[in-house]
Amino acid sequence: MKGVILGINPRARIVDLTHEIPAGDIESGAFALAAACGFFPKGTIHVAVVDPGVGSPRRAIAMRTERFTFIGPDNGLLSLALARETVKTIRLLENPGLLAKAISNTFHGRDVYAPVAAHLSQGIRFRTVGSRAGSYVQLKLPEPVAGESGIDGEIMHFDQFGNAITNISGELLPDARGLHVYMRGEHLCRVEPFYAAVPSGSPAAVVGSTGFLEIAINKGSAEQALGLQTGNPVTIRPSENPC
Amino acid sequence: MKGVILGINPRARIVDLTHEIPAGDIESGAFALAAACGFFPKGTIHVAVVDPGVGSPRRAIAMRTERFTFIGPDNGLLSLALARETVKTIRLLENPGLLAKAISNTFHGRDVYAPVAAHLSQGIRFRTVGSRAGSYVQLKLPEPVAGESGIDGEIMHFDQFGNAITNISGELLPDARGLHVYMRGEHLCRVEPFYAAVPSGSPAAVVGSTGFLEIAINKGSAEQALGLQTGNPVTIRPSENPC
Amino acid sequence: MKGVILGINPRARIVDLTHEIPAGDIESGAFALAAACGFFPKGTIHVAVVDPGVGSPRRAIAMRTERFTFIGPDNGLLSLALARETVKTIRLLENPGLLAKAISNTFHGRDVYAPVAAHLSQGIRFRTVGSRAGSYVQLKLPEPVAGESGIDGEIMHFDQFGNAITNISGELLPDARGLHVYMRGEHLCRVEPFYAAVPSGSPAAVVGSTGFLEIAINKGSAEQALGLQTGNPVTIRPSENPC
Repeated sequence: MKGVILGINPRARIVDLTHEIPAGDIESGAFALAAACGFFPKGTIHVAVVDPGVGSPRRAIAMRTERFTFIGPDNGLLSLALARETVKTIRLLENPGLLAKAISNTFHGRDVYAPVAAHLSQGIRFRTVGSRAGSYVQLKLPEPVAGESGIDGEIMHFDQFGNAITNISGELLPDARGLHVYMRGEHLCRVEPFYAAVPSGSPAAVVGSTGFLEIAINKGSAEQALGLQTGNPVTIRPSENPC
Repeated sequence: MKGVILGINPRARIVDLTHEIPAGDIESGAFALAAACGFFPKGTIHVAVVDPGVGSPRRAIAMRTERFTFIGPDNGLLSLALARETVKTIRLLENPGLLAKAISNTFHGRDVYAPVAAHLSQGIRFRTVGSRAGSYVQLKLPEPVAGESGIDGEIMHFDQFGNAITNISGELLPDARGLHVYMRGEHLCRVEPFYAAVPSGSPAAVVGSTGFLEIAINKGSAEQALGLQTGNPVTIRPSENPC
Repeated sequence: MKGVILGINPRARIVDLTHEIPAGDIESGAFALAAACGFFPKGTIHVAVVDPGVGSPRRAIAMRTERFTFIGPDNGLLSLALARETVKTIRLLENPGLLAKAISNTFHGRDVYAPVAAHLSQGIRFRTVGSRAGSYVQLKLPEPVAGESGIDGEIMHFDQFGNAITNISGELLPDARGLHVYMRGEHLCRVEPFYAAVPSGSPAAVVGSTGFLEIAINKGSAEQALGLQTGNPVTIRPSENPC
């Protein structure tokens, strides 16, 4: 992909976000993109490729938002990042003049997304990419439920440290002090300001760098130590109401 | 290596191809380089380091082809990429003025290949690298055998998704429709246009982005799910002749 | 981190040293930085983030040496690199104008170290970073002991090939020929000039690219094949004195 980009635009600045997404895991890719894309400069072209449907009739799209361009397969991969952006236009990647001459059925990152991104980085008009599309595929994520006794959420994703990132936004926890985390019907830990607030090897819940509450083990992997999995329920309750 | 390169040529553009080659696996490195190098712009200097013989008397070489320069140990690592290029000159890396002042016996990537590449990127004459060499070490790869009943090949390499890449070029399969794949004397799957043509978890053979037929599991790892290994025989037969 | 840096200084050159340090392993990070930093051009800003205490009151520092700037948590991570440099000034990262507007408690690489590095790369005065600090946290590493019968050291670190890097500097072995390595009271191997001096699968001790003696298996992993661990004692003796 980088060779293709530099062949079209030798002055392109290319940054790797991650190559650690599990193969075909669209949701993990969507989380990683959403967590990081907002920290890049205005005008950045974000190319994302987790593309298990490559070669099938799934659509390939480019989207303009107020700050960025996003390019990738229309399989939900871009949708979590777009939820935080103001989408202006969506177009299909159709213009054969912008694609590789020979397009494989297995690596559109190289043959489709990279060349379109490189041409856009040189300032071609966005409309030349292809015809307009009305919508894009959105991942359906479970929403946390806030009730009288607390907030019920679940684990969405694990980062490379084994921290379990939940769907409970830090905005739902304006005063996190004194909040407690329950899993499997039992008390697990408190919401802490940072990982090292508990001893090494102990669990802590922290509002992480993605803005969501995460379950962590100080200097360890919560995923492994607690045997956690995506979808596991997580409940937050005030300390006065332990059970 | 990057620090050394930028110390010599602060304007060098450096791209990582991969750091995922198993330690000392020259053949995997040769495949990765051959699959990708042609997509880089003309004039690219390809530096490859899979170098288990570092420090021993094995030769270090640079080669000019019509499009590229290749630099690395003369252990076969460069040979699969060169099979697709027109080699013009081969030279030994001998000029001490182009190498590190102190040369370790364990990391010639840093002390030999990187500084030579950096100096060449600044436009020094290729002949200053060292004396001319007549030939280079070539990996001997098994060739597929096409007979009346089909094509007999074998697994050469696994990519990071666990796809098993065979030595059967897509050019041997001009009309892949209706072709069937046999392994271990049993029917495994059909040749399909793309991975997602079969259900998740099912096997499919696809002419992949390297141009070779590969055995894949849709959204899975063929290497793990089928217990495949390098060297396993793969037979392609028309559907009319299943056994 | 890269998005933040490029947002502040679009012309910054960014190089990844490694993303393979085990989570929270300050010592491994310190070794990797010390082994590589000296090969970068004068003026390089080295940002290192292995930061298990992120969010806690541990200090964040920047240091100027004669050749480089180092930025990171004050937890010992920078100290092995600094042992080879002449430290000129140490300052705390305190100036809120150089940091992210919202500072997370879990990712200071993004919110603290990266923006300070980017501002420094644009030539702001070093003193604007924050107030002066008198000292920095130093990792205490066991020193090898040289006696009549040989040198007693230990394993400090494993590299990505599974080579076991000891605390015995090559400078302690001016004439390495004929030296033998003992572990667990038994003879293991000789000190060799390079890995391939022994057959594949055999152990060899080599003064590696970091300048320290390392225990290796030719084309294999000493860590796995020999079951080695950090802290294991290693003894070097002349051949005349085998036991």
